[in-house]
Amino acid sequence: MSVPSPVTIRRARREDVKAIVAMLADDPLGSTRERLEDPLPPVYFEAFDAIEQNPDVHFVVAEDTDGVVVGCLQLCILPGLSSQGASRAVIESVRVASHCRSRGIGEQMVQWAIAESRAKGCRLVELLTHHTRVDAQRFYARLGFGPTHVGMTMRF
Amino acid sequence: MSVPSPVTIRRARREDVKAIVAMLADDPLGSTRERLEDPLPPVYFEAFDAIEQNPDVHFVVAEDTDGVVVGCLQLCILPGLSSQGASRAVIESVRVASHCRSRGIGEQMVQWAIAESRAKGCRLVELLTHHTRVDAQRFYARLGFGPTHVGMTMRF
Repeated sequence: MSVPSPVTIRRARREDVKAIVAMLADDPLGSTRERLEDPLPPVYFEAFDAIEQNPDVHFVVAEDTDGVVVGCLQLCILPGLSSQGASRAVIESVRVASHCRSRGIGEQMVQWAIAESRAKGCRLVELLTHHTRVDAQRFYARLGFGPTHVGMTMRF
Repeated sequence: MSVPSPVTIRRARREDVKAIVAMLADDPLGSTRERLEDPLPPVYFEAFDAIEQNPDVHFVVAEDTDGVVVGCLQLCILPGLSSQGASRAVIESVRVASHCRSRGIGEQMVQWAIAESRAKGCRLVELLTHHTRVDAQRFYARLGFGPTHVGMTMRF
């Protein structure tokens, strides 16, 4: 890692959606899944509204010292019965703008998510990372996550 | 698999919590994590109330033809921005009572969850299964799930 860039982690706003989708699309997997068009397809804003209205879903962005959005992360807090009724947190959609990687921005976002999960009383944080994202797996291992599970998915 | 046992999948009720916790505890991993005591620790009922109040979390049980609870599954529907604003479903806490395994009960529950996820407009269903649960991974693969991701966790 080069010099860490300090960022502010804040709740995403509607005007951040384009920057978020650009980050989601700027990725070998995301490029085939997203539609980074101008104007952006309305489905993204509909999804953003659903996120905003859901008290258990926290979509945050990392903003650099110039106010530019350079990262994003979604955190969901879910109740559950297992592990003595423990709530659990699920981290999704972690992205850092490609020109800002290796500056500790992802780490600051994930540390925010871990702290928020603890503050909400969760006893477990979980995430799925694509098996091809070996760097991501190393990154999460460094932050204290264990590769304990197989993440299985079905797409419709 | 022997002869499939037809079950009814229905929303879990407060009086099912003990049977659910018994299933969660009857497992090499769960036995160290749960507290199957009489009376059951109140945390389980508090967690159940939180689940009941959350419109995006569906905890169901499988009931046999005698009305006995023989399986459980938690399904969460989460909004998201990635994959063109697709909602996703997360399956958790899938258990079948040990004396009822290999009768297609887990399959009926998971097929219910897949159908429900489709009905709610999800385009992705995901789950984490412990890396030691090789039979579970084979089971999910047979139902159409791919081992596409590494499931990483952190416990507090």
